[in-house]
Amino acid sequence: MTQPARILVVNGPNLNVLGTRNPEVYGAETLADLEARVRRRAEALGVEVEFVQSNHEGELVDAIQRARGEADGILINPAAYSHTSVAIRDALEYAELPVFEVHLSNIHRREEFRHRSFVSGVADAVLAGAGPLGYELGVEWLAERIAAR
Amino acid sequence: MTQPARILVVNGPNLNVLGTRNPEVYGAETLADLEARVRRRAEALGVEVEFVQSNHEGELVDAIQRARGEADGILINPAAYSHTSVAIRDALEYAELPVFEVHLSNIHRREEFRHRSFVSGVADAVLAGAGPLGYELGVEWLAERIAAR
Amino acid sequence: MTQPARILVVNGPNLNVLGTRNPEVYGAETLADLEARVRRRAEALGVEVEFVQSNHEGELVDAIQRARGEADGILINPAAYSHTSVAIRDALEYAELPVFEVHLSNIHRREEFRHRSFVSGVADAVLAGAGPLGYELGVEWLAERIAAR
Amino acid sequence: MTQPARILVVNGPNLNVLGTRNPEVYGAETLADLEARVRRRAEALGVEVEFVQSNHEGELVDAIQRARGEADGILINPAAYSHTSVAIRDALEYAELPVFEVHLSNIHRREEFRHRSFVSGVADAVLAGAGPLGYELGVEWLAERIAAR
Amino acid sequence: MTQPARILVVNGPNLNVLGTRNPEVYGAETLADLEARVRRRAEALGVEVEFVQSNHEGELVDAIQRARGEADGILINPAAYSHTSVAIRDALEYAELPVFEVHLSNIHRREEFRHRSFVSGVADAVLAGAGPLGYELGVEWLAERIAAR
Amino acid sequence: MTQPARILVVNGPNLNVLGTRNPEVYGAETLADLEARVRRRAEALGVEVEFVQSNHEGELVDAIQRARGEADGILINPAAYSHTSVAIRDALEYAELPVFEVHLSNIHRREEFRHRSFVSGVADAVLAGAGPLGYELGVEWLAERIAAR
Amino acid sequence: MTQPARILVVNGPNLNVLGTRNPEVYGAETLADLEARVRRRAEALGVEVEFVQSNHEGELVDAIQRARGEADGILINPAAYSHTSVAIRDALEYAELPVFEVHLSNIHRREEFRHRSFVSGVADAVLAGAGPLGYELGVEWLAERIAAR
Amino acid sequence: MTQPARILVVNGPNLNVLGTRNPEVYGAETLADLEARVRRRAEALGVEVEFVQSNHEGELVDAIQRARGEADGILINPAAYSHTSVAIRDALEYAELPVFEVHLSNIHRREEFRHRSFVSGVADAVLAGAGPLGYELGVEWLAERIAAR
Amino acid sequence: MTQPARILVVNGPNLNVLGTRNPEVYGAETLADLEARVRRRAEALGVEVEFVQSNHEGELVDAIQRARGEADGILINPAAYSHTSVAIRDALEYAELPVFEVHLSNIHRREEFRHRSFVSGVADAVLAGAGPLGYELGVEWLAERIAAR
Amino acid sequence: MTQPARILVVNGPNLNVLGTRNPEVYGAETLADLEARVRRRAEALGVEVEFVQSNHEGELVDAIQRARGEADGILINPAAYSHTSVAIRDALEYAELPVFEVHLSNIHRREEFRHRSFVSGVADAVLAGAGPLGYELGVEWLAERIAAR
Amino acid sequence: MTQPARILVVNGPNLNVLGTRNPEVYGAETLADLEARVRRRAEALGVEVEFVQSNHEGELVDAIQRARGEADGILINPAAYSHTSVAIRDALEYAELPVFEVHLSNIHRREEFRHRSFVSGVADAVLAGAGPLGYELGVEWLAERIAAR
Amino acid sequence: MTQPARILVVNGPNLNVLGTRNPEVYGAETLADLEARVRRRAEALGVEVEFVQSNHEGELVDAIQRARGEADGILINPAAYSHTSVAIRDALEYAELPVFEVHLSNIHRREEFRHRSFVSGVADAVLAGAGPLGYELGVEWLAERIAAR
Repeated sequence: MTQPARILVVNGPNLNVLGTRNPEVYGAETLADLEARVRRRAEALGVEVEFVQSNHEGELVDAIQRARGEADGILINPAAYSHTSVAIRDALEYAELPVFEVHLSNIHRREEFRHRSFVSGVADAVLAGAGPLGYELGVEWLAERIAAR
Repeated sequence: MTQPARILVVNGPNLNVLGTRNPEVYGAETLADLEARVRRRAEALGVEVEFVQSNHEGELVDAIQRARGEADGILINPAAYSHTSVAIRDALEYAELPVFEVHLSNIHRREEFRHRSFVSGVADAVLAGAGPLGYELGVEWLAERIAAR
Repeated sequence: MTQPARILVVNGPNLNVLGTRNPEVYGAETLADLEARVRRRAEALGVEVEFVQSNHEGELVDAIQRARGEADGILINPAAYSHTSVAIRDALEYAELPVFEVHLSNIHRREEFRHRSFVSGVADAVLAGAGPLGYELGVEWLAERIAAR
Repeated sequence: MTQPARILVVNGPNLNVLGTRNPEVYGAETLADLEARVRRRAEALGVEVEFVQSNHEGELVDAIQRARGEADGILINPAAYSHTSVAIRDALEYAELPVFEVHLSNIHRREEFRHRSFVSGVADAVLAGAGPLGYELGVEWLAERIAAR
Repeated sequence: MTQPARILVVNGPNLNVLGTRNPEVYGAETLADLEARVRRRAEALGVEVEFVQSNHEGELVDAIQRARGEADGILINPAAYSHTSVAIRDALEYAELPVFEVHLSNIHRREEFRHRSFVSGVADAVLAGAGPLGYELGVEWLAERIAAR
Repeated sequence: MTQPARILVVNGPNLNVLGTRNPEVYGAETLADLEARVRRRAEALGVEVEFVQSNHEGELVDAIQRARGEADGILINPAAYSHTSVAIRDALEYAELPVFEVHLSNIHRREEFRHRSFVSGVADAVLAGAGPLGYELGVEWLAERIAAR
Repeated sequence: MTQPARILVVNGPNLNVLGTRNPEVYGAETLADLEARVRRRAEALGVEVEFVQSNHEGELVDAIQRARGEADGILINPAAYSHTSVAIRDALEYAELPVFEVHLSNIHRREEFRHRSFVSGVADAVLAGAGPLGYELGVEWLAERIAAR
Repeated sequence: MTQPARILVVNGPNLNVLGTRNPEVYGAETLADLEARVRRRAEALGVEVEFVQSNHEGELVDAIQRARGEADGILINPAAYSHTSVAIRDALEYAELPVFEVHLSNIHRREEFRHRSFVSGVADAVLAGAGPLGYELGVEWLAERIAAR
Repeated sequence: MTQPARILVVNGPNLNVLGTRNPEVYGAETLADLEARVRRRAEALGVEVEFVQSNHEGELVDAIQRARGEADGILINPAAYSHTSVAIRDALEYAELPVFEVHLSNIHRREEFRHRSFVSGVADAVLAGAGPLGYELGVEWLAERIAAR
Repeated sequence: MTQPARILVVNGPNLNVLGTRNPEVYGAETLADLEARVRRRAEALGVEVEFVQSNHEGELVDAIQRARGEADGILINPAAYSHTSVAIRDALEYAELPVFEVHLSNIHRREEFRHRSFVSGVADAVLAGAGPLGYELGVEWLAERIAAR
Repeated sequence: MTQPARILVVNGPNLNVLGTRNPEVYGAETLADLEARVRRRAEALGVEVEFVQSNHEGELVDAIQRARGEADGILINPAAYSHTSVAIRDALEYAELPVFEVHLSNIHRREEFRHRSFVSGVADAVLAGAGPLGYELGVEWLAERIAAR
Repeated sequence: MTQPARILVVNGPNLNVLGTRNPEVYGAETLADLEARVRRRAEALGVEVEFVQSNHEGELVDAIQRARGEADGILINPAAYSHTSVAIRDALEYAELPVFEVHLSNIHRREEFRHRSFVSGVADAVLAGAGPLGYELGVEWLAERIAAR
C-alpha cells in the first residue's frame, strides 16, 4: 500500500496575524482557520499536510530545505519575502519538488514593488487574489500533480 | 427556484490549436478536450458554462461586453492579448463581474514581455502554470464567489 | 456651389456601451446621445458628419483608409487602441487629412499606460478630459481647419 | 440677477512675443490678437475674461492663487513651465477651480521633454495643437462647465 | 514527382493601400504590382505562392495557423503589427515553418517604437529597407531553405 | 556676551496660502500661525528667527544668499521647488550654513515626482510628514547644532 | 488616572555596534548612550519607552507585531532593512500605530540604493541626518501625536 | 561706417556671488573681475558687450527676448537653470542669434543631473571647464561668427 | 561601354575564422567559401566584387573610406563592431554609397546587446539570419540599386 | 612569537546543502568537503580558519560583527544574500578587515538579478566561477594581504 | 631660457577626410587646413604643436601614452571614439596633462548616443560646436593653463 | 611524456604603462615585474606561459584566435576593452578554451560603466581587486582546470 502524498504548506511573514491585519484586503479568517480549511480539503483529497509559518527568512529556508525527501510538494505563500528573497527561491530550487505559489490578494493590483516575485521564477504554478480558497485549489493541484508522476 | 450561475469561459488567440501547438509547453489536450473537462467540473458544481474562443481582439471585446447581464462570472485566458490589449481590459471592467484570469503556462518563467498582463490589473484572481486543471480551479473559485454574493 | 465639408467621426472599442460603462468617469450619455449631439453641432456649422464605431482594430483601419477621398477631416476617439495600435496610426497618416484626437476623460490623470497615445504623434490636435462637449469642439476645429484650406 | 462667469486666462513664458517667435509653429497672431479673439468669444458666450501673461514662474503662481475667490475657471497655457513647474501645479490645485490647459502646438509631436506636463495631472481638460482657436474652445468648455455647477 | 514548394506571403495592415501611402517611403508600386513581382520570381524559382493581406490582426493569425500543413514556408511583412502583436508571433511559432520577415523601409531609421519587432524573435531571417525587391529575395531564401530540408 | 543664534526660516511657493490649501494634507494652520509657533519655540530656545516666504524661485535664491554672514542656520521648506530647483540647491551650498529641510507632508507617500528633492543632497537633515511641529523640531536641531560649533 | 503613552523604539541591524562603526558618519555615542538619551527625553515628556534592537529581520517583525495593543507609537530606525525589507513595512502597517522613521545620517547624500526606503511609504514622518538628537525629536513628535488623538 | 557687433553676456543664478562661492571649483575672481576681463577682450576684438545677471529665471527670459534686435550674439552661462529651464531655452530660440553657452566648471565631472543642459539643444557652441578664460574664448568665437555673416 | 558596378564586401572581426567558429550558429562554410559564393553570384549579375576582412576597427574604417570613389556600393557584415563602433558608422556615412548590412545569424534571437546595431542607422537595408545566402541577396540588391541610379 | 593570522570563512544561505543542490552548477563537494579543503590550504599557508554557515541573514551579520577584533580577514560567499542584503554589507564595512568575496559559479552568466552584489561594493577582491578552488585562492590572497600589513 | 610649451593635437577617426565628409556639418576645411590654422595660432602664442590623426583606437592610445613626458598638454577631438572608448579615457588619465576636448559640431544637437563622451569625464575643458576655430581656442586655453603652472 | 600545459596571458590597453599609471590604484609593479611574477608561479606549477599585450583591440582579437590550437587556457585582463569590446568576447568564445578574467582593481568600486564586462559573459571565472597576485591565482586555477580535463 502506497503512502499518502505529503504537502508542506509554508506561510511567510505577517501571516501569523492573519484575520486582524487589514481585513478588507486579507479577510477575517485567522491562520488557524486557514490551516483548518486546508486540512479539511487535504483529507478529502487523501493527502497529508504539514504547516510552517515564520517571520524569519532563514527559518523558511530551513523548512524548505527539509522538505526535500520529507515532502512531495510545497504550497507556499512567501508574502513580503516574495519580492525580496533570493534565498527562498534558491531553497525551493534545491527542494526539487512541485511548487504552488499562492497569494491571498491580487498582487498585480497593489504597489509596483509587489508585482515582481522572485519565487515565481521557480514555482510551477502561481495564484494570486483567490483568498483562502486559493490554498485549497493549490492543494488540489499539487495532489493531482504528485499523483500524475 | 434560483437559476444556476452562468460562467463565460473566454479563450484568446491561438488557443483554437491547443494540443498541436508546442505540446511540451501547453500539453496534448485540444480545446475540445479542455472545454469538456471544464463542462464536467461545472456540472459537478452546479453551474453553467458557455465557451467562446477567438483570434480576433474585437470579437473577444464583443463577447465580454455581452457577458454583462448574461453571465455571473468570467473565466478568461487572454493568451497573447494579455500583454497587448487594453481594449479587453476595458471590456472586463465594463462587465462588472467576477473575473478569473488563467494561463496554461507559468508566464513568469517565459520571455520578459509575457510577465506583464493588462488583464491582471482588473481581474480578481490570476492563475498561471496550472495547465488545464487551472481552468477547473477557476470555475470552482467563480462558483463559490458567485454563491457568496 | 461647393459641397459641405465631410467629417468622419471614429469611435474605438467599448464606446458602443457608453453611458453604462463607468458613468462617473465617462458620463451617462449613450453613444447615440453623443452622436446626436455631434450631429446638431455639425449642422449648426454647416458640415456633414458620418459615424463609425467598432471594437475591431482592423475595422477602424478599414474605415480610416476609406476616409481618404471620401472625407475632409477625421475626429477620432481611439479609446483603448490609443495606447496599443500602430496600425491605426499608420492608417491616419495614410489618410492625409486633418485629424482631431479626442478622449472623454483626462488620460493624464489615469493609469500610467494611458499617458502615451500612438495616435497623438500623427494627430493635428489632441483634446482629453472635456467629455462629450469635447467632440463638438473637435468638430468646430475641423470645420474651421477645412474651411481655411 | 446672477453675475457673469469670470475666467482667468493665464499665458506663460515667451507667449508675450507670440507672432514673431517661430511663426511656422505658433502662427502669426500676436498675444494682443489672441486676447482679442478670446474676448470676442467670451462676449458671445456671456462670460468675462481677464488676462495675465508673465515670463516669471512666481508671478504666475501669484496670479493663479488670486483666482481663488475672484474667478470661476482658469484657462492656462503654461508654455515652457508645463514641463518644469510643480509650483504652478500646486497653485492650480489650491485654486480649486475648473482648469482648461491649452497648448498652441501639438506637444506630442515635439521634443521628448515636452511630452510630459506637470499641469495635466491637475487640469480637467487638456488641448494641444489647435492653435489660437484652441483658446476659444477652452473658453466655451469652461463657460459650460461653470454654468453646469 | 515531388510537388513544388508552397510559400504563404502575408501582408499586414495598410499594405492594401501601397503605392498611394507615403510613396517617398514605400515606393509607387501597388500591392497588386508587388504580388505580380513576387509571383514572377516564384515561377522562375519553381515555387508556388499564395497571398493574404489583412488589416485585421485576427485574420492574420487565422491565415498563419492554416499555413501549418498547407504551406512550406512563410514570407511575412507584419507592418504595424510587428511592434504590437504577440498573437501573430505565437501563430508563427505554432506554424513550425521557415519564416522570412520583410519590411519595405529600414525600420531602424524610423521612430524608436518601430525598432522592436515581436516577430523577429521567432523569424529565421529578417530583412528591412530593401523595398519590393526584398520580397523577391525572401522568396529565394525560402525556396532554398525548403529545398535544403 | 555672545549674540543669540539667528535662524532664517524660508518658506517656498504656495505656503503663503497655508491653512486654506488642501487642509486634510497640510492642516488648518495659516502661515502666520506657523510662524508664531516657530517664534515661540525659538524664544524658548534662546534663538532668533527671521522669516521669508516667496513664490519666486529667484527671491528665495536672493534670501538664501543673504543668509551667508547674516544668519547661523537655515530652516527651509522648499515646497514645490524641492523637486525642480537646482538654483536653490546651489544657493544653499553657497551659504555654508547648517541646513534643516522640512516638509509638512510625507512626500514619500505622494506622487512619484515628489520623492526626489534637489535640496536633500545639500541639506544636513531632512524631515517630512511631521506637520507644523516639524518646524519646531528643526529649530531645536539647528539651535543645538549652532551651539555645538 | 490615564496611563502614560508607551513608545516602542526599534533599532535595526548594526546599530548594536554604534559608536565604533564609522564614527565620522554615525558619531561616537553607543547604543546604550543613545537609549539613555531617549529615555531622559521621554521622562521629561511623560511618556514611557521600550527598546528593541536586532540584526534579524524576523525579530524586528515579531517585535513590531507585538507593539499592536502594547504600545501607542513606534520610533524606528530600520537601518539597512529600510532599503530591502517589505516584511517590516507590512508589520508596521499591521501595527496601526503612529510611526516615526529616523536615520542617523542623511541617506540622501549616500549611495543611490540608500535613497529608497520601503518603510517611508507607511511611516507618518521621516527624519534623516539629525544624528542622535533625531531620536529625541521623534519621541517628542510621537508624544504630541498620541496626546492629540 | 558699420556699427560694432554687440554681444549680450548673460549670467544665471548664484553667479553674482562668484569668488566667494566654492572657490576651489569656481575660482577667486568675482563677477566684476570676470566682466572686466570680458570687456577687455571685447575691446581688443572691436565688439561691444552688455552684461546682465539675475537669480530670476523670468528676468533672464526677459533679457534674452530683448536681445532680439538689440544684440548680434549671446554669451550665456545659465548656471543652475541649464538643467531645469525650458523657458530660457525657448527664449534663446526666439532670439534667433548665435548663442555660445559657457560653464566655468566641467559639468561632466559633477553630479549626474548637471550633465544635461536644456540650453545645449539650442546653443551653437558649448564650452565647459575653461574657467573665466572660457568667457573670453566665447566672445572671440561670437565676434568671428558675427563678422562672417 | 560602361564599366561594371563595383561592390566592396566588408567582413568584420572573427569572420576570418568562419567555418570553425560555432558552426551550429554560423555554418561550416569558411570565409574563402563564402567569398567564392559571393564572387559567383556577382559574376552572374555582371558586377565586380572586392573583399576586405579585418579584426581591426581602424582598418575597416580605412577600407570604407577608400570605397568612396572606388566602389559603387558596400556590403558589410560588421559582426561584433555592429554593436560598439560609431567610427564605422561615421565612415559609412562619409562613403555616400548604397549600404547593405548583413548578419549571418538572426541577431534579434541572441543576447540583448546584439539587438542594437550602430550601422543600421546609416545602412539602406539590413538582413539578419539568412546565412551565407544573405550575402548573395545583398549583392543582388546592390546591383539593382546601383543600376537604378 | 607572532600569532598566526585568523581568517573567518562565512558561507551564506543554502550552502549547507552543497553537493546535493544543483550539482552541475555547484559541483559534488559537500560543505564539509569544502571546509576540509580550505583547512588544508590554510594549514599549508600557516593561517588559521574558522567557519560559519547560516541561512539567517541576522546570524551572518552577528558573525561578521564578532570578526572585528577576533579575526584578521574575512572570506565570504554571501550566496543569495549577495543580491539582497545591505545589512551584511554594512556589517562588513563595520568589521574593517580585508574581505575576499567568493562565488562558486560565475554569477555574470546567470539570471540578471545575480549580476549585482551589494557586497562587492565593500569587498577588496571578488572571485566568481572558480568553484571550490576559489575558496583556497581567497585564503592565499588573504594570507598574503594580512602578512603585508 | 625656457623651452616653449608643447601641445599634442590628437584627431580621431574619419577626421582625415575632413572637408569632404558632410561639409554642411563639418565645414569645407581639410585636415591640412585645420592643422595649418592651429599651427599659425600656436606660433602666435609661442607654443609648439605636434599632430597625430588615426582611425585606429590603439594608435591613439599609443600616441597619448607617449605624450606623458614629451608634451605639456593635449588637445583632442576623439570623434566617434568619444562615445565608445574607455581605452582612450584611461590613456588620458595616465598622461597626467591638461586636456582640452574639442568637437567640431555641437554633439548635443545630434543623435542621442553622441551626447555622452567617455573623454569628458577626464578632460579639463570640453568645447563642442565651435568648428575649426574651436581648435584655436583650445590651444589658447592650453597655452595659458600650461603657463600658469 | 605529455607536454606541459600552455597558458596565454593577455593584457589589454594601458597595461604596458603599469607601474607609472595611477600607482595608488594599480600598484608600483611594471608589466615586466608582473610577467616575471607570473612566470615564476607558472614554473612552480609546471605550466608554460606566453605573454601578449596590446593597446589595439584587433591585435588582441588576433592573438586570442591564435590561441585556439596553440594554448590550453587563457588568462586575460581586458582592461578598458572589458566594457566596450564584443569582438574580444566573440574571439574568446571562438577559442573554446578555459578563460580566467582578471582585473587588478575591484571594478565594482569604480565608475558605473566599469561594472559591466562583456568578457564576463564568456569567461569561466572572474577575479577583480586582487592586484598582481590575482594573475598568479588565475594561473593556478587554469593549471588545475587543464589538468582535470
